Amino acid sequence: MDVNVVLSPLETNYVINTLYLLICGALVMFMAAGFAMLEGGLVRAKNTAEIMTKNIVLYALAGVMYMFIGYDLMYGSPAGGVIPNFNHLLQFMSEGKASYATVEQVTAGKVNIAEGAFFFFQVVFVATAMSVVSGAVAERMKLWAFIFFAIVMTGFIYPVEGYWKWGHGFLDVMGFKDFAGSGVVHLTGAAAALAGVLLLGARRGKYGREGQVNAMPGANLPLATVGAMTLWFGWFGFNGGSLLSISSVNNANIVATVFMNTNLAASGGLLASLVVSQMFFGKADLTLIFIGQRCKVATYWFV
Amino acid sequence: MDVNVVLSPLETNYVINTLYLLICGALVMFMAAGFAMLEGGLVRAKNTAEIMTKNIVLYALAGVMYMFIGYDLMYGSPAGGVIPNFNHLLQFMSEGKASYATVEQVTAGKVNIAEGAFFFFQVVFVATAMSVVSGAVAERMKLWAFIFFAIVMTGFIYPVEGYWKWGHGFLDVMGFKDFAGSGVVHLTGAAAALAGVLLLGARRGKYGREGQVNAMPGANLPLATVGAMTLWFGWFGFNGGSLLSISSVNNANIVATVFMNTNLAASGGLLASLVVSQMFFGKADLTLIFIGQRCKVATYWFV
Amino acid sequence: MDVNVVLSPLETNYVINTLYLLICGALVMFMAAGFAMLEGGLVRAKNTAEIMTKNIVLYALAGVMYMFIGYDLMYGSPAGGVIPNFNHLLQFMSEGKASYATVEQVTAGKVNIAEGAFFFFQVVFVATAMSVVSGAVAERMKLWAFIFFAIVMTGFIYPVEGYWKWGHGFLDVMGFKDFAGSGVVHLTGAAAALAGVLLLGARRGKYGREGQVNAMPGANLPLATVGAMTLWFGWFGFNGGSLLSISSVNNANIVATVFMNTNLAASGGLLASLVVSQMFFGKADLTLIFIGQRCKVATYWFV
Repeated sequence: MDVNVVLSPLETNYVINTLYLLICGALVMFMAAGFAMLEGGLVRAKNTAEIMTKNIVLYALAGVMYMFIGYDLMYGSPAGGVIPNFNHLLQFMSEGKASYATVEQVTAGKVNIAEGAFFFFQVVFVATAMSVVSGAVAERMKLWAFIFFAIVMTGFIYPVEGYWKWGHGFLDVMGFKDFAGSGVVHLTGAAAALAGVLLLGARRGKYGREGQVNAMPGANLPLATVGAMTLWFGWFGFNGGSLLSISSVNNANIVATVFMNTNLAASGGLLASLVVSQMFFGKADLTLIFIGQRCKVATYWFV
Repeated sequence: MDVNVVLSPLETNYVINTLYLLICGALVMFMAAGFAMLEGGLVRAKNTAEIMTKNIVLYALAGVMYMFIGYDLMYGSPAGGVIPNFNHLLQFMSEGKASYATVEQVTAGKVNIAEGAFFFFQVVFVATAMSVVSGAVAERMKLWAFIFFAIVMTGFIYPVEGYWKWGHGFLDVMGFKDFAGSGVVHLTGAAAALAGVLLLGARRGKYGREGQVNAMPGANLPLATVGAMTLWFGWFGFNGGSLLSISSVNNANIVATVFMNTNLAASGGLLASLVVSQMFFGKADLTLIFIGQRCKVATYWFV
Repeated sequence: MDVNVVLSPLETNYVINTLYLLICGALVMFMAAGFAMLEGGLVRAKNTAEIMTKNIVLYALAGVMYMFIGYDLMYGSPAGGVIPNFNHLLQFMSEGKASYATVEQVTAGKVNIAEGAFFFFQVVFVATAMSVVSGAVAERMKLWAFIFFAIVMTGFIYPVEGYWKWGHGFLDVMGFKDFAGSGVVHLTGAAAALAGVLLLGARRGKYGREGQVNAMPGANLPLATVGAMTLWFGWFGFNGGSLLSISSVNNANIVATVFMNTNLAASGGLLASLVVSQMFFGKADLTLIFIGQRCKVATYWFV
């Protein structure tokens, strides 16, 4: 540990960016708790504990699989490709840790953030994609089948799709834009969720013999509300950290705007679904409100 | 996005202050979840879901109303006035975003924080004032009446009172002091709450025919406890961010003292009410403890 | 409050380190809520509210006792000793606040962080040690007996053991290593917990006449799960802040690695206990999973 080192401006940038991304990453980590609460509150009481187990287990799986396999698939493969390069598979682990940038590398402008902070911010994203799946297949997938899929998702599916864009694969080369993971995280999670839902079918009793729809209201709406608000809190890290650097007047302006817009997007989405819910169903339905609140669009206006 | 910009000291200050205020603002945002849990836990079981709905809706309303109307009323009006200037009403929105300071403005010392971060820190305060009302009128106000009042409160009442002090209105010119919103946020919220309570009267069944008081204990004290602790967590952002700048040795000292005092104030308040509760009622009453814990006084000792 | 001060590099370090430690400290504070939820969820329903009361009260006690007595015992005593020096007992309080470093002291390299931030980071650790005790003696200790012990623990036992290592007492002089409190916090808490458990014995009904073990499952596993995830969130501050300085390329690298390893350690521990639970008990037992998740080992690899 160093004490009282006089830093050059680029070293100071390195320190600030590292601090910034670590805090944002911690906020994203806490979204795992938010998803657990939201999903735990929206299922029937008998399934609450199980879905919360799934959520904490998937977060742990994402941590291990992405560290051992996913990170190198996603960021160690050649630019412009479709299939990631498996030669790099164990590079991250064989070094035993994130690479440590030297003062020389930093002052030469070769690196502006600690790799450990970058890795940490990436690893908490993986769990988010899997949380989308978790909510979609709630109440109709056994724990160990879910775990098996989570291993495949966090170790392989997500890293491959992440490589296409953020790992400089073919989508990135083609000019695809994805600031905070609408494609890499949410579309990937949603596609896997859709596949799961098609395979699993509806929950038993959801539809009657005559095709009527039976409501299956969440058993613990207060828990779900706290979950939705915890997600809201975590989104500031998720979107706000996605610039990966705050170390210039311009970057600080952008990050601040992203925080501002994240709040406005969620607020506007929530209110719109409140009005729609009142108009079409005659009441303010909390479940609908939560869906509206997850609106991310306005986040990306200015980046 | 900039990479590897060599920053001058004032630019570095700008980046650090922006980061500091965004993090503090995120903590304040999470107080909305704390209020929801505290209020949700202290009402009767039948009203838990409704009050939590109110809390998440009021937060969203504050986000939209303050963005569209309140912010310009509060900060776009002439110094020393009582009635804010409506000419500025749409300035913030017509620019479409917070203004972006240039490097020139920053190095000339004209601005030391991104406006987006300042706006974000302000907008999360608005909801806090409305949360005070929410708790006071719990269990006896319909959702849409509450929403209507929240619109007026977050778009007009709070911004006008905020203008008087923080927007350099007449109170500020007269030398009124308010470091972290004891007046602007808490007194404004409390005054509105008092008006609401006078209009609405007591909860049905609270008082018997002979004037006896019927206890209406909270249905979910664990939820309320977590809410109180979440508020505690958020207060570090609320009080700690209120200096608006951390970029000097002196400012860093003050912010650190505010964190320290915030913790001591809540601790001391909680213990005092614990002792009082034991002495007067013969038991440690959680509801009283939560009230004591919200003591803010010591926060302001040294600022 | 200063505006637009041009800072020298060591002053900027001071500001950054202060901000870094305050944020980490706030995360540690939130662990108090995590412990409350974890313990509240794992006891029987009739004891949930009481154990949550204990948790919020112990946190407040830690805040007051450590401010008035513990901090000076721990950090105001001579190097190499066993018994702390009581002459300093009221130094911290008699000054009325944390000492304020001057610009001269900072630029001379004598101090690199605001004392208030250092104190804040220390005071939130005290409660963690006491939370370990709280969980161990759950369901069989009266509130006021618990409060009395918490006063002794947070005002005297913890500060004395903390002095031995972090206050440069005899353990530190002998070369004892303790990066993030495995000894000072967790062993101290665990030793006090063991003493308490030996005195109190098992919960009534835990063991039958023939020595058979009766399961006493937690009444609220969702609450416990959220608690475990909240602790996970707070650990990033607990471990990540323990370097006490982030202001160099090397320090930033270490802090980032600590965040990364904290996540991996908890993930790996959770998965290992999941597998063990499935192998030995034939099911994924949430209570076991929470124990595994609290693995801290890997955090310390590289520091």
